[in-house]
Amino acid sequence: MGALPANNSLMLTVKSKVWDYSVEEFPSLEAALQTAVGNPRNCYLVDQKFSELHAAALRSLIPEARVVYVEATEENKSYTAVAPVIQQLLQRGLKRDGTIVVLGGGVLQDIGCFIASVLFRGLRWELVPTTLLAQADSCIGSKSSINIGEYKNQLGTFYPPNRVLMTSSVLGTLPWDEIRSGLGEVIKLQLLAGERGFRELMVDLSRLQSEPALLGKWVRRSLEVKKPYIETDEFDRGVRNLLNYGHTFGHAYESATHYAIPHGIAVILGMLTATYLSARLGLVAAEHYQELKSLLGRWHEPYGNQLSPALLPAIFQAIRHDKKATGDAINCILTRGFGRMEKSPVPFETQLVPAVTAFVQQELAVHNSNPLPTS
Amino acid sequence: MGALPANNSLMLTVKSKVWDYSVEEFPSLEAALQTAVGNPRNCYLVDQKFSELHAAALRSLIPEARVVYVEATEENKSYTAVAPVIQQLLQRGLKRDGTIVVLGGGVLQDIGCFIASVLFRGLRWELVPTTLLAQADSCIGSKSSINIGEYKNQLGTFYPPNRVLMTSSVLGTLPWDEIRSGLGEVIKLQLLAGERGFRELMVDLSRLQSEPALLGKWVRRSLEVKKPYIETDEFDRGVRNLLNYGHTFGHAYESATHYAIPHGIAVILGMLTATYLSARLGLVAAEHYQELKSLLGRWHEPYGNQLSPALLPAIFQAIRHDKKATGDAINCILTRGFGRMEKSPVPFETQLVPAVTAFVQQELAVHNSNPLPTS
Repeated sequence: MGALPANNSLMLTVKSKVWDYSVEEFPSLEAALQTAVGNPRNCYLVDQKFSELHAAALRSLIPEARVVYVEATEENKSYTAVAPVIQQLLQRGLKRDGTIVVLGGGVLQDIGCFIASVLFRGLRWELVPTTLLAQADSCIGSKSSINIGEYKNQLGTFYPPNRVLMTSSVLGTLPWDEIRSGLGEVIKLQLLAGERGFRELMVDLSRLQSEPALLGKWVRRSLEVKKPYIETDEFDRGVRNLLNYGHTFGHAYESATHYAIPHGIAVILGMLTATYLSARLGLVAAEHYQELKSLLGRWHEPYGNQLSPALLPAIFQAIRHDKKATGDAINCILTRGFGRMEKSPVPFETQLVPAVTAFVQQELAVHNSNPLPTS
Repeated sequence: MGALPANNSLMLTVKSKVWDYSVEEFPSLEAALQTAVGNPRNCYLVDQKFSELHAAALRSLIPEARVVYVEATEENKSYTAVAPVIQQLLQRGLKRDGTIVVLGGGVLQDIGCFIASVLFRGLRWELVPTTLLAQADSCIGSKSSINIGEYKNQLGTFYPPNRVLMTSSVLGTLPWDEIRSGLGEVIKLQLLAGERGFRELMVDLSRLQSEPALLGKWVRRSLEVKKPYIETDEFDRGVRNLLNYGHTFGHAYESATHYAIPHGIAVILGMLTATYLSARLGLVAAEHYQELKSLLGRWHEPYGNQLSPALLPAIFQAIRHDKKATGDAINCILTRGFGRMEKSPVPFETQLVPAVTAFVQQELAVHNSNPLPTS
């Protein structure tokens, strides 16, 4: 594609064992697409709903004959559902010298990344992330996650995009719940970064609805926090594990509610669970948990109420099935405070089950009406 | 597994961008399996037919509850057919700290390699190649090839085994046609290596049926020829392309006959086609083609007769569909003589079609009864 056009700017570059790649920032979707559509051999994998919201821009810039539309559902992120998508891309003439340009959020990214990594033994792909979650978190880091049968996220590859084309201009069309879901990972990253960033984020979030441009700032700040984790440990064997803070429990909450809870909101609930567990294990003061519980409540309500005690068996089954399970202990990311997360095996029956049970039975149910004392 | 047991020896090691790996040689299947079965977390992907031929050894050494059997058919080497295999491996308790041990030939290797590369974002796998083709060629080089719908070999990954456990003792149970199929790639590699190796091979092959132990020698010699190609160009962007000598046409012959021609035998027919085309293009003397045609006849007969002129449209369609097609020319591996192969685009309509037509109509049909003059 040669030199960058004048209307974009480099947000950051990411070093990868596969290939280095850059995140470039554009003032509009049109500007981003104009950069992506240069190669007539490209094919486009586009989120169905996004394509409806931005029909004019897409229709004018992307050749319809080269587009495959996919609905961003958990069902479509499965090994079996990916097969017809691959066949459609081949039918539209995608060849080994082409590029898959993905426009969408996390689900489309997972599908596109997976396909690019297995088609022609590895194909170029570029990503235009269209949700806050994809922009502020998943767009860098190389990972794809694909379901098979009842096994969630057990398949996937490490295969970064060749380029990320970012434009916060598209965030304006997102429903508020999807913004909140993306904020889950934004909050997680600032909790990992330390107290100062987290408190600055809390202040900004309180005025987000009147000043939506603040989102762009936190997209950048989020990626800056994530970058060293994935560069140091691209294949997720060490420090990168800490990015899973909140995810062991979050995934279980998503699964047990059949994905009625959006991913990022489940992560917020998962982080609160991990912090509650950490406090019970004596790693962190109960006050730290109470403060987070109070600050983060508005970012998960009313979804926390979905976690009824009746779901506990399903939650524990999901945790057991989780890919991080090895033997009788469950590897959890626990916390000793802001910026002090650590991976630790937690005995399942004696420690994890009672803590999660108490969290779901007492911490969420009484959240609004009857806050617990701090110790 | 620690130090090698005394009863095996290192055949060679292969450098890879993913990880280096070794080919170890064992005196018996039992000795190879004893080395592979150390980890109770292993799962085994076993060729159905091979398991029947070696039932005693397998039953005594491999825990039945951890085995998935697969029939080595072209249909099973497809994206869709792989799904239940993955699910069976998960149901048998395979986890990210396990290893997939593959016992089989090229099809099982493709399936096992593909699964290992996408399951848990990359899993350890070891290979016990059980056919001559797998032993002498495909077991090193990292590639997997998977079909999707009518698109053959369009999916795949570069993902070498962590270890290859070789034992020529199992070749004794192979049908003669499968030996011949494996010899196709053995012959190809010696044609690439140069005249001396090729002539030595021809001499050895003439006494193969009375001295089957010669196969072990040519397994080793084949891998020694292949090793520098894959080490220099693991991802097949340059010199490794030359290993496709005979394959553009061979794949088309396999496809047009619905796989009635075994792969290696199709490669022999494909190499003859490529040499015939090279002679027509003036790259090599017609005598060179005539000599190869005469020397290699016994290694493809009677399969060459399957290529009736009526199949030509299907053959050309397959060549056009081949992944190596870009634009109007087809990239072919042509030859200027022993050890002098080169990649070159050949115009489809004006050069390739007439040459292949003549080859199929005249060179094969009259092969036995009426050899053409040498020019």
